[in-house]
Amino acid sequence: MATTAIVGAALVEAGLSPQTGFVTALEPFQQAGLGRATDVVFGGHDIATVPLQKRAEILTDGGVLPQGAVRAVTEQLDRVDAEILAAPGAGTPPSVALERLVADLRTFRNRHGLDRVVVVDVSSTEAPVPAHPAHRDLAGLRRALERGEDVLPPSSLYAMAAFEAGCPHVSFTPSTGARLPALDELAQERGLPYAGSDGKTGETLLRTALAPMFATRNLTVRSWSGTNLLGGGDGETLADPAHAASKLDSKSGVLGALLGYDVVAPLHIDNVPDMGDWKTSWDHVSFEGFLGTRMRMQVTWEGCDSALAAPLVLDLAHLLAHAHGAGLSGPVPELAFFFKDPLGRVPTHGVEQQFATLVRWAEGLGGGR
Amino acid sequence: MATTAIVGAALVEAGLSPQTGFVTALEPFQQAGLGRATDVVFGGHDIATVPLQKRAEILTDGGVLPQGAVRAVTEQLDRVDAEILAAPGAGTPPSVALERLVADLRTFRNRHGLDRVVVVDVSSTEAPVPAHPAHRDLAGLRRALERGEDVLPPSSLYAMAAFEAGCPHVSFTPSTGARLPALDELAQERGLPYAGSDGKTGETLLRTALAPMFATRNLTVRSWSGTNLLGGGDGETLADPAHAASKLDSKSGVLGALLGYDVVAPLHIDNVPDMGDWKTSWDHVSFEGFLGTRMRMQVTWEGCDSALAAPLVLDLAHLLAHAHGAGLSGPVPELAFFFKDPLGRVPTHGVEQQFATLVRWAEGLGGGR
Amino acid sequence: MATTAIVGAALVEAGLSPQTGFVTALEPFQQAGLGRATDVVFGGHDIATVPLQKRAEILTDGGVLPQGAVRAVTEQLDRVDAEILAAPGAGTPPSVALERLVADLRTFRNRHGLDRVVVVDVSSTEAPVPAHPAHRDLAGLRRALERGEDVLPPSSLYAMAAFEAGCPHVSFTPSTGARLPALDELAQERGLPYAGSDGKTGETLLRTALAPMFATRNLTVRSWSGTNLLGGGDGETLADPAHAASKLDSKSGVLGALLGYDVVAPLHIDNVPDMGDWKTSWDHVSFEGFLGTRMRMQVTWEGCDSALAAPLVLDLAHLLAHAHGAGLSGPVPELAFFFKDPLGRVPTHGVEQQFATLVRWAEGLGGGR
Amino acid sequence: MATTAIVGAALVEAGLSPQTGFVTALEPFQQAGLGRATDVVFGGHDIATVPLQKRAEILTDGGVLPQGAVRAVTEQLDRVDAEILAAPGAGTPPSVALERLVADLRTFRNRHGLDRVVVVDVSSTEAPVPAHPAHRDLAGLRRALERGEDVLPPSSLYAMAAFEAGCPHVSFTPSTGARLPALDELAQERGLPYAGSDGKTGETLLRTALAPMFATRNLTVRSWSGTNLLGGGDGETLADPAHAASKLDSKSGVLGALLGYDVVAPLHIDNVPDMGDWKTSWDHVSFEGFLGTRMRMQVTWEGCDSALAAPLVLDLAHLLAHAHGAGLSGPVPELAFFFKDPLGRVPTHGVEQQFATLVRWAEGLGGGR
Repeated sequence: MATTAIVGAALVEAGLSPQTGFVTALEPFQQAGLGRATDVVFGGHDIATVPLQKRAEILTDGGVLPQGAVRAVTEQLDRVDAEILAAPGAGTPPSVALERLVADLRTFRNRHGLDRVVVVDVSSTEAPVPAHPAHRDLAGLRRALERGEDVLPPSSLYAMAAFEAGCPHVSFTPSTGARLPALDELAQERGLPYAGSDGKTGETLLRTALAPMFATRNLTVRSWSGTNLLGGGDGETLADPAHAASKLDSKSGVLGALLGYDVVAPLHIDNVPDMGDWKTSWDHVSFEGFLGTRMRMQVTWEGCDSALAAPLVLDLAHLLAHAHGAGLSGPVPELAFFFKDPLGRVPTHGVEQQFATLVRWAEGLGGGR
Repeated sequence: MATTAIVGAALVEAGLSPQTGFVTALEPFQQAGLGRATDVVFGGHDIATVPLQKRAEILTDGGVLPQGAVRAVTEQLDRVDAEILAAPGAGTPPSVALERLVADLRTFRNRHGLDRVVVVDVSSTEAPVPAHPAHRDLAGLRRALERGEDVLPPSSLYAMAAFEAGCPHVSFTPSTGARLPALDELAQERGLPYAGSDGKTGETLLRTALAPMFATRNLTVRSWSGTNLLGGGDGETLADPAHAASKLDSKSGVLGALLGYDVVAPLHIDNVPDMGDWKTSWDHVSFEGFLGTRMRMQVTWEGCDSALAAPLVLDLAHLLAHAHGAGLSGPVPELAFFFKDPLGRVPTHGVEQQFATLVRWAEGLGGGR
Repeated sequence: MATTAIVGAALVEAGLSPQTGFVTALEPFQQAGLGRATDVVFGGHDIATVPLQKRAEILTDGGVLPQGAVRAVTEQLDRVDAEILAAPGAGTPPSVALERLVADLRTFRNRHGLDRVVVVDVSSTEAPVPAHPAHRDLAGLRRALERGEDVLPPSSLYAMAAFEAGCPHVSFTPSTGARLPALDELAQERGLPYAGSDGKTGETLLRTALAPMFATRNLTVRSWSGTNLLGGGDGETLADPAHAASKLDSKSGVLGALLGYDVVAPLHIDNVPDMGDWKTSWDHVSFEGFLGTRMRMQVTWEGCDSALAAPLVLDLAHLLAHAHGAGLSGPVPELAFFFKDPLGRVPTHGVEQQFATLVRWAEGLGGGR
Repeated sequence: MATTAIVGAALVEAGLSPQTGFVTALEPFQQAGLGRATDVVFGGHDIATVPLQKRAEILTDGGVLPQGAVRAVTEQLDRVDAEILAAPGAGTPPSVALERLVADLRTFRNRHGLDRVVVVDVSSTEAPVPAHPAHRDLAGLRRALERGEDVLPPSSLYAMAAFEAGCPHVSFTPSTGARLPALDELAQERGLPYAGSDGKTGETLLRTALAPMFATRNLTVRSWSGTNLLGGGDGETLADPAHAASKLDSKSGVLGALLGYDVVAPLHIDNVPDMGDWKTSWDHVSFEGFLGTRMRMQVTWEGCDSALAAPLVLDLAHLLAHAHGAGLSGPVPELAFFFKDPLGRVPTHGVEQQFATLVRWAEGLGGGR
């Protein structure tokens, strides 16, 4: 997804691709003076060492990136590659890793003379993390880390580093990330906005479009069953029940919240390697209308996850930069439109209403980032 | 549909059925003090002479009405049967038919001591009607009718009769009905609200839930193909291309309005007699995301048209009675939530936003009808 | 399923229902002089004690049996009820249970003066049973039972009882049943045919129709993913992973056998109580054609399991009675058409070829039972 | 399709593509010593003048041909291009056109020293052709052509030319082709086999796999509705109702033949340009089981027509060459496996049985071509 975002942004900036899929390219955001989400400098930490060009070629073979695209932006990819640093290795004491990440972020910002840097987590989904007393407040967390205790999952260590370095943070995965009281305290203290979690790009997006239809028509959903087939790295990660648990948790809250009652909703994620970066979901909804009449709806979604997610990642970085510029801090519930499991007090999961909320919020930002 | 509405209302009033499928039974409307949509006295004109009980039994065999339901409300059905009058026969001069319909409506209102009577058109879809100069203004229309000219289709003659008798009017079908400048003039003159047209109960409802998802995510829909299989009287009527034309017209405007551009959208209605009152629609959407990636969505809807439409018919009569009570006249665009091809200046076709609009409107009505 | 078979057979015999769904009612079998599959006397063992009439009424409410059907065959149901015996209780020593079952079968046959009794297992799916040395040969099995060892699952104990009583046996479930060398030895010794296992009524039936299409067109299936939603008792039983294991095993062999290679084939069975006796399966097939072109097929099957299975149960009893009459013994691979996981050396899983095999076999039976 | 066949054959011969999709590459045909279907010399007549390389590039952009494939076989494509002749122009008197086509075929055969040339019609579907007395016998047809009468559609003129030049003929389209008594007489006279018509590659293939399942299970199909979405040249041609009529005719016979009764079967072909060479079909089958229970099945097929058809075109040419070598003449019903509307006395439309028939027939050919 990161590769698609980087290659795609380069293509848009070079005038070689339209901005299809970018929410912030829509008229109300442009009228609010938000500028282009692709007008950014990329950097990052990665555990893999495959060069961007090579990754981009693999995506091209998988039909995700258009033929010839990589060649057109070779130079830009090389520049980004130079900014991708090795992630601190396993075994590095947490406080050492934290210090290094903070230093890396500051160096990156200074070297490029950037007003703001937004950190986005697009790494693989972690298994759920057990609660720990050190998560409750910042002082306790700092003490635990100083004692060398391994109390944070990687996603949260990176979120902490972002905040320490003065950077807004986006959780595009269901991993814990900034979703801990101690880290919220840190973000508030530093005046930093953050958003998450788990980008809404396929089945859940559909559900947040469809469930309001049943609710507003007073039709009773009796069961909403779902199956997801996906390959690629995501398919492999989620074939592990521990990792899948995070994702299934993140997906499952939406229906109850939209319908106003609990519903039988078996949900599967299957690893089907031949599907590569493509995801097919099938939803079967059994519902009841007037006089107990039983009816059914089925939806099949065949989407390319990278193509759907990449522009949203850039939209979010862009919007959080604006939020930072406007002086906001803490979770930003108005960004719920983008997420399966939105942070903060979110009034609705319905996609249309969430969009209206987002537009109003963006109009109030004042357009500086 | 009329039979389902009548039997269903009797069951709800007798406490034998919940109000599933009634929009006005949802919390915001109840909080606005709107009362029960089933608290009505039924009457009507019909070209068929089959007794209600017999129709109800046929619907029971077709799985639309629950077993045993008819027996529980025999008495109520008999009472309604006594209020169903023969429609003026073919060949009756229009002005004679008009006079008779107006007299029937007044008699019905007086006999039952009703504050208001709302006329709802749930008859079979008419073929589109060519424009005629007499449609342009009320004076011209009256003159043409006095001269015995056959310038109005039945749906419009009944709408005119409703207005002449002081009754609000609902077009639940795509037929012309009140949608003529001359009839709008009459409604405004008499201070009568009206609404239409073509109840949104299945495929189009789905489209108005799904199209906003593509629009707000800036995904480009390349084609949206649809097929409808239905049996029953509707299937037969719509198997005739002239009648289907009205329905297809009514359905086709929605996508362009929601997406903001024209889209290839082949659409079929097939008569499949074995499906009876059930309708299955299949929609295939081909769309494009970031970097030109082509993706697809398919939706199958298996609904029972009567069960979906009947509560909406009662909701609409109920809401128009309230609108009348509140002194509104002319088309009511805030009722767009219910229609495929809503009358008046409708700001959006998106189902969630339409619902929000409806709620706000109902809250402002003051709750008297 | 048993209730549907009993009520249905009574309706067919009374001339109140056509023989839709009966394979042996098709022309080639009638030409072979096989007679009617419904011309039988029912009896059985059951762990439940709900009277047949009551069960039939529940099925009527669930839309499986037609309204009014039960009333038409009350007398027949009462007669069958008198023949349904309590299954030996949990804790009964196996040799005692066996003796009682054998005696019951003999008594039933004698009291009705029947030429043959066929035992059909339509009980809930058991969890898979670990191998045991006593399964290997009849002498060893007898010794273990005499020692009071609990070496047989109930399905196999009933199969043994059937053989001891001189009755052919059908496994309509994936439970172990007669599928043990020791029981095969017994069947051969007594000259008894048997068949199984796991009736093919839905998703697997579809797969055995579709997989030959891919194989004969030399199209490479890359993955074949499946999801099953079902309610009722079956849904509940199969929601238990141990019981589901038997069913998933039984389903999974078919694709590899038909395609000639192993294929990624994730498969789920979900308990969705609101679906009652109805089963919806969704299959997604990803396949590759000339020049590596990737294509897809999806199939949704919405079937009523009882309605599909009941006539096959009667067909099988009927065909095994004929096989017995013709002097056959051991597994009957020519009945593979009916099963997900057929016993004996089965040349093909393709549904068309299996049918042709069945017809040829039936033509050779000579028509006596 | 022709371009895909030519490029594909070159890739297979060069060892750059496996033989996926070739029926004759399956084991039973290889054991019968049939050799490779791609071992051919291509030539042809075309009304278009776009060079093969250009066409191949368009197919590459449309995702039909793999990236880089064209470059690997540039030389081979140039050689074939040199063998593609302009089709006789509109207005050429039929007898003149005929003479030219025959001469072209003979020249091609002699120049390459070929034992046999097989003519395959893969042109666009023609509108149905009205019957004409000259179609009844060869003498009458010759007289009409000598008189300059325009009694043959192009597809039949080319079939006649093939026969006059001593070439077997394949109709891969639903156009009339060789399907006239006069042309059958000619084929028989010259000892030439021919086959057709209308390659079975998608929805109809599925139907011939699925319908036998319903028939052999004695399940009554109540309706079988179908919709086809396709783009490309085919979509455009078939958007014209006259041309679509041929295709719909060809498709419609199969269900009745397989089921043994007429079935309500509405069928549509829609032109959806954005789908290019890809075809999506949706089939909805409503069927009835035991006790009148109504059930449903839906199938969606997403196939690439060229990739499915191209290897079959080569298979057919290959098999007809063998048939010619074995001395067969007239229609070859054993090739029914390949066609929607097979010529000759075809015992079954079921895909499994047709394949078994084809294998037996191929084994009897003796392996020389």
